[in-house]
Amino acid sequence: MEKLQEYLKSHNESEMHPSDIAQILRQLNDSQFAQSVKLIPKNLVGDVALALPDRLFDDVVENLSVDELSHAVTELESDDQLEFMQELEEVNQNVASEVFDTLDEDDKQEITKLQTYDDGEAGAYMQLEVFTATKDEIVHDVIKRFADLRKANELENVQNLFITNEENKLRYTIGLDDLLIFNFSKTLRDNIENSGEKFEPKVARDREDIKDVVHYFEEYDLSVMPVVNDYGVLVGRITSDDIYDIINEHATEQMYNLAGVDDDAEENEEVLRAGKKRASWLGLNLITAILASVVIGMFSDTLQSMVALAILMPIVASMGGNAGTQTLTVVVRQLALGDISQKDAFRIIKKEILISLLNGMIFAIVMGIIAYIWFGMSNLGTVIALSMIINLFVAGLFGAAVPLFLKKMSIDPAIGSAVILTTVTDVVGFFSFLGLATLILL
Amino acid sequence: MEKLQEYLKSHNESEMHPSDIAQILRQLNDSQFAQSVKLIPKNLVGDVALALPDRLFDDVVENLSVDELSHAVTELESDDQLEFMQELEEVNQNVASEVFDTLDEDDKQEITKLQTYDDGEAGAYMQLEVFTATKDEIVHDVIKRFADLRKANELENVQNLFITNEENKLRYTIGLDDLLIFNFSKTLRDNIENSGEKFEPKVARDREDIKDVVHYFEEYDLSVMPVVNDYGVLVGRITSDDIYDIINEHATEQMYNLAGVDDDAEENEEVLRAGKKRASWLGLNLITAILASVVIGMFSDTLQSMVALAILMPIVASMGGNAGTQTLTVVVRQLALGDISQKDAFRIIKKEILISLLNGMIFAIVMGIIAYIWFGMSNLGTVIALSMIINLFVAGLFGAAVPLFLKKMSIDPAIGSAVILTTVTDVVGFFSFLGLATLILL
Repeated sequence: MEKLQEYLKSHNESEMHPSDIAQILRQLNDSQFAQSVKLIPKNLVGDVALALPDRLFDDVVENLSVDELSHAVTELESDDQLEFMQELEEVNQNVASEVFDTLDEDDKQEITKLQTYDDGEAGAYMQLEVFTATKDEIVHDVIKRFADLRKANELENVQNLFITNEENKLRYTIGLDDLLIFNFSKTLRDNIENSGEKFEPKVARDREDIKDVVHYFEEYDLSVMPVVNDYGVLVGRITSDDIYDIINEHATEQMYNLAGVDDDAEENEEVLRAGKKRASWLGLNLITAILASVVIGMFSDTLQSMVALAILMPIVASMGGNAGTQTLTVVVRQLALGDISQKDAFRIIKKEILISLLNGMIFAIVMGIIAYIWFGMSNLGTVIALSMIINLFVAGLFGAAVPLFLKKMSIDPAIGSAVILTTVTDVVGFFSFLGLATLILL
Repeated sequence: MEKLQEYLKSHNESEMHPSDIAQILRQLNDSQFAQSVKLIPKNLVGDVALALPDRLFDDVVENLSVDELSHAVTELESDDQLEFMQELEEVNQNVASEVFDTLDEDDKQEITKLQTYDDGEAGAYMQLEVFTATKDEIVHDVIKRFADLRKANELENVQNLFITNEENKLRYTIGLDDLLIFNFSKTLRDNIENSGEKFEPKVARDREDIKDVVHYFEEYDLSVMPVVNDYGVLVGRITSDDIYDIINEHATEQMYNLAGVDDDAEENEEVLRAGKKRASWLGLNLITAILASVVIGMFSDTLQSMVALAILMPIVASMGGNAGTQTLTVVVRQLALGDISQKDAFRIIKKEILISLLNGMIFAIVMGIIAYIWFGMSNLGTVIALSMIINLFVAGLFGAAVPLFLKKMSIDPAIGSAVILTTVTDVVGFFSFLGLATLILL
């Protein structure tokens, strides 16, 4: 707590950064935390709360009154206002609607407007504050207006001037680096015409998939993008800091989905919610594990006559599962990054089978020799070696083909592909090993 | 190919974007590709090659002469020059050094300078082109100089003016949005003093871990950061487009490491290199699978007397492995994102054990009933239920504790943690199930 007091004393408010305060808060225990929340400057508390993990966001808002919360929301930019209100609703629906009622009409309208967008739509990530002008304004006047807006703290982190027509449709995007070398005593129109450049805006549509918008940022090295609606009317902008968050979120989603975990449920601190989502995946896994056991059960006579088979059989399944997961992960990720596409399907499947089969042959030989030495039966070595080659071939094939197929069916390849794959490698692993044993050994 | 010709005809060179051309090239077959490479405007071919996946980069450079390659490099920004030369070296060492020899002294020096940085250092990602001025310059003159540099295509995508002293040490960072509202007829010094703001630069050090720099960008919502050396001398800048790439790369690295795949080796098209790296993980997995088999072998008498145990035992191991992987993935990712830290260790382990144990109990009951019905033995149901509870408890404990422990030891928690975890859940799964069976059933 002294650390926070020290920070607050040594910085004046314009120099403080919400992330720094959040960083200090995270080091505190619960009672220090509650006291410290009261010390945060009221203009910054909204940003500080949003810079904390969800669990601590809850702790911040529980230590603030409705008036304080309302003030905090007022100080945020539009996209952050929406996020704050959404998180607040999750903490306490009643407090959230009380806070909403106290907001002024403009803020209410903006939040309501942003709420109309779905989670995956570009509009849901934009902020509404933009710096606009019309063509016939003199550059000098535009800059004067800009200076006033800056002073009133209405606009932050501006990199472009957006030129709209009388219907507010976006016509040009002028980078501040271009604006700086314009002739200030002339109109924007004259400057644009003299420059020889087109200043054609690269726009995102508000209902567009945010993944596509992220892709534009990456491909075209953008740091900001205007957002327009279906009529071309400028409605907001998306900035690089949003993109960092979205890239991270998407990667998290992918990793979690591969492991059978739901990213939304995990963000939350409720053990039950995360647990329930995980349970549905474990339930699916139980079914596939039982299926594998049924396959084993088909060979109960064989197993009874040679216990070595029971001892060795998990190895074949495990190696197949691991090799398949390697392939699966690479294919899922490269599909997501756009490094490979449907059109490469044949090449990728061929390559993945080759890698998996090569490794299969190496470890088949190694394991064959080990089994031979362990149980003193050369035929047993042959059986495990052959079944490992079969299973790793299948692992490469399905590890590559499953995500490519799901993608083709427009299903997210990260979801469910791991469960399909391990079902295949378990079933094929046990079946090939015990089947070959029945044929060769008995 | 017609598509490329059409694109080239319908855009003049300043409007063309390398990513668009790369996009068209990716749709072509090999022979069309080779012909099309010749059509790409020489000023853009470097950027186009870098916008393609490694495999196609190789195809582009193989279709160009040393002179063409050399021209392509000249047109790139410094960080891209380095990347281009590094990729070229991987394709053909000799051609790369021939190209290097033809470059002019400035380019050679810049590339050599950037090469001194290690892969994980901030300096390796920066570009050297920056827009600087000294305090005593009149704003108007600075802007005039800027306009000339822009016209000569020496500076792109500028968002800040960096003010350095006579030793080239960075003193202030002025956003173009601030510069725009400065008094142009006064010096920078006067403007800074009048503004009341500090314009204190947030800097990255060139030898700093790039992960920390990414963290600054995310925390402080930056779109560009100046890079200084140990003496505070301005050496370059890192921009948001670099950060997008790095965030994606790090996420890929993490996903791959969890699956036992090496990201560098996979980028490459050489099947052998990727295969070798994957083999080392599969080899490790083979050892742990054999270890699990040794545990099973300890109970060979038990297995011999009851084949149902062999049939059911993979279920216990599989459920433990899956529940553990769920926990492991969440903890590894949240550690990487900074959502949790060492200090939360106790809370996280407790939470993860709770989730895993809850699910363990549910599925223990389900599986106990199934085993009872399947084999008509209530004791067998009890044995599998108990061992599943034990194994899912262990899965939650180790799934959370292993990455936290590795992190504490300053080892990347994504590397190796999955193998440690499945070893534990396999060994504990088989041991508890067969051990309890020996105690209760025989």
